[in-house]
Amino acid sequence: MRMVDLIEKKRDGETLTNEEIKFIVDGYTKDEIPDYQMSAWAMAVFFRGMTDEESAALTDAIVHSGDTIDLSAIEGTKVDKHSTGGVGDTTTLVLAPLVASAGVPVAKMSGRGLGHTGGTIDKLEAIPGFSVEISNDRFIELVNRNKVAVIGQTADLTPADKKLYSLRDVTATVNSIPLIASSIMSKKLASGADAIVLDVKTGSGAFMKELDDAKELARTMVKIGNDLGRNTSAVISDMTQPLGYAIGNALEMKEAIDTLKGQGPEDLTELCLVLGSHMVVLAGKAETLEEARSMLENVMKDGSALAHLKKFAESQNGDPDVIEHPEKLPQAAYTYEVKAKESGYVSGIVADKIGTAAMVLGAGRATKQSEIDLAVGLVLRRKIGDRVEEGETLVTVHSNSENTDDCVKRIYESYTISQDKTDAPPLIYDVMK
Amino acid sequence: MRMVDLIEKKRDGETLTNEEIKFIVDGYTKDEIPDYQMSAWAMAVFFRGMTDEESAALTDAIVHSGDTIDLSAIEGTKVDKHSTGGVGDTTTLVLAPLVASAGVPVAKMSGRGLGHTGGTIDKLEAIPGFSVEISNDRFIELVNRNKVAVIGQTADLTPADKKLYSLRDVTATVNSIPLIASSIMSKKLASGADAIVLDVKTGSGAFMKELDDAKELARTMVKIGNDLGRNTSAVISDMTQPLGYAIGNALEMKEAIDTLKGQGPEDLTELCLVLGSHMVVLAGKAETLEEARSMLENVMKDGSALAHLKKFAESQNGDPDVIEHPEKLPQAAYTYEVKAKESGYVSGIVADKIGTAAMVLGAGRATKQSEIDLAVGLVLRRKIGDRVEEGETLVTVHSNSENTDDCVKRIYESYTISQDKTDAPPLIYDVMK
Repeated sequence: MRMVDLIEKKRDGETLTNEEIKFIVDGYTKDEIPDYQMSAWAMAVFFRGMTDEESAALTDAIVHSGDTIDLSAIEGTKVDKHSTGGVGDTTTLVLAPLVASAGVPVAKMSGRGLGHTGGTIDKLEAIPGFSVEISNDRFIELVNRNKVAVIGQTADLTPADKKLYSLRDVTATVNSIPLIASSIMSKKLASGADAIVLDVKTGSGAFMKELDDAKELARTMVKIGNDLGRNTSAVISDMTQPLGYAIGNALEMKEAIDTLKGQGPEDLTELCLVLGSHMVVLAGKAETLEEARSMLENVMKDGSALAHLKKFAESQNGDPDVIEHPEKLPQAAYTYEVKAKESGYVSGIVADKIGTAAMVLGAGRATKQSEIDLAVGLVLRRKIGDRVEEGETLVTVHSNSENTDDCVKRIYESYTISQDKTDAPPLIYDVMK
Repeated sequence: MRMVDLIEKKRDGETLTNEEIKFIVDGYTKDEIPDYQMSAWAMAVFFRGMTDEESAALTDAIVHSGDTIDLSAIEGTKVDKHSTGGVGDTTTLVLAPLVASAGVPVAKMSGRGLGHTGGTIDKLEAIPGFSVEISNDRFIELVNRNKVAVIGQTADLTPADKKLYSLRDVTATVNSIPLIASSIMSKKLASGADAIVLDVKTGSGAFMKELDDAKELARTMVKIGNDLGRNTSAVISDMTQPLGYAIGNALEMKEAIDTLKGQGPEDLTELCLVLGSHMVVLAGKAETLEEARSMLENVMKDGSALAHLKKFAESQNGDPDVIEHPEKLPQAAYTYEVKAKESGYVSGIVADKIGTAAMVLGAGRATKQSEIDLAVGLVLRRKIGDRVEEGETLVTVHSNSENTDDCVKRIYESYTISQDKTDAPPLIYDVMK
């Protein structure tokens, strides 16, 4: 088998066999296929796409390019959730204790990542003392006992994906749905989940700006997951504006606590209930989505979801008092109210741009070396569809610097105020399984 | 400027500026742009194509990636001819002395190349003593005196093309018309020609199997040449079967001698007259193609074309007697007649396959290290449209080995005999300028 022939085959719109795809991924992982052939192949995939069978074969080959995690020592059906990413996305912080308190085992391996705010680990570390530096045995023990634990990623998962993603990043071949789908799904599968719930974001603040692309990505990932033996569902949710109100690590932790108490923002609460219901059903803890939802509503109401977060934090060395006294979370030195310059209705909040406004305060990492300031960030006071009068607050800035000019400028640029009443966008566009 | 952005721009079907194309070619030549970005870009070009302006800019950038030849010391308008390659293509051997005897300066830099037979230099070396190892000064002097000389390629012409071609070869990005056109034209322009006549072959034995592709390649190259200030014409000629009868180095030299005497195969003679007429007109030696053609017919008839070949050979150390006594050319030890197994009409000769039949005898190089046997090759006795009776000769094999089984098998596989009368294919499909 020669790589040049496989590039040509894909270039000419033919379908590669499972064996051919395995040859490509194995050869690339072992440096037997050079970058220049892989990038030409990736560009051919960009133009020609892949069949569902090819996408599944690619995912499977990437999964087996490195270590895979064995979670069989954990009782029950392990359900993982993945979000394609957005701004102010606090769902994992809410969902993990929420579904755990409904009996679903949540064994989360997580990273820190780059972006407008930190990753799930950074947000959890806003709880003083919280640590993901635990042994594998302790991790398994905690999930079995508390149904929830988070561990930092240490294994060499999906090296083919890491290598291919770096290459795609510099060869303009990132935006290919089968390549995105196989990249995401390979990581989930290698992490050992039995079932997967995907939150595919769409809108200006999402990677998939267009709903049709988000639908196609969701459909492809669900097909890959199911083809490779893991029950997979996808929810397509809105990211034309940030989810919830908080953007920033400690601020999102606080918002998660509020949400688990049933006092969170409406959109965040609803999305967590929808995603959580799918997780509960896939874990076999409820027969129907309706039944699952009422279980989750109950654990919010009766305080057991919040209690679960407390137990979760405490088990990983975090200060449990923070859960009842969120004022103990890291606090910024200054707050600044960004006020509306005119009266009207909020008709748009460019999520990307307002995310960057949080990042310039220090809420996120621009490079792997950047230090995160857990205390800083933004709290939105108005979202799309809300009425605002001139001089009323649009956003509260939490900053550790007196100079917030760059941040404030970006906030004004991201808000559009219009005279016509605008409706809030729908929260959920579609569900696939 | 970042290469990744330029790949994306091309990927998305936008047009690159001249400056951007120069950045790509310069960066790649200097190893500042890695192979993996260049191959992704080439694949994007495969799918998106290039505008005529982009193709001209690419050609110009490749020309200036290395040395360029200055032929200004040669009097008159230097016209170069280029063929996109086929099987048994003896045109250069005929055309060089033919147009030179009509006063057109032919300053030919040539290589050896891979293929079914050797390149022009190998074929000329069938004349005992003939050498292309002459100094640049001697080369210029000979062209000024005899109007024709051939020199081996020594300068570092178009290094960007060499590098890019090697990359395209292993990344399935060869078959892109703008990339092919700029590769060919950059070499012609760097070689210093004032005007260019292109012989674009089409049919089963040509690189461009389809007439439409050949037309588009010809159109693109003519546009590039004219845009970059060199008068360029193209003739699209047939390569559904080999041109002329001979395939092999000494055999083609003999055929060229016959053709210069006006006793060559009809198709080879006609194509040389057509291409030669364009060269004469572009060199300003005739006003019209008709006038040019009658000049060329005259130099064939009155013996001056053949005399020119003699003078040309002699000036480069070749034995001039060979021209009048072609039996002095290298002769193979054995000849073998491949006979028709049934009566009928020749309806097809797969040029590629019959070329390989000559190559297995030793007529061409499979690798750069291969030794060529100048004496061996094939002489076709029947071409498409000819009637043949069972037992009559289709091809005469000239071999230095008694075992010609592999060659003969390939010859039978390349010939199709049909009961219905088949017409010979047209020789010339189109002319562009």
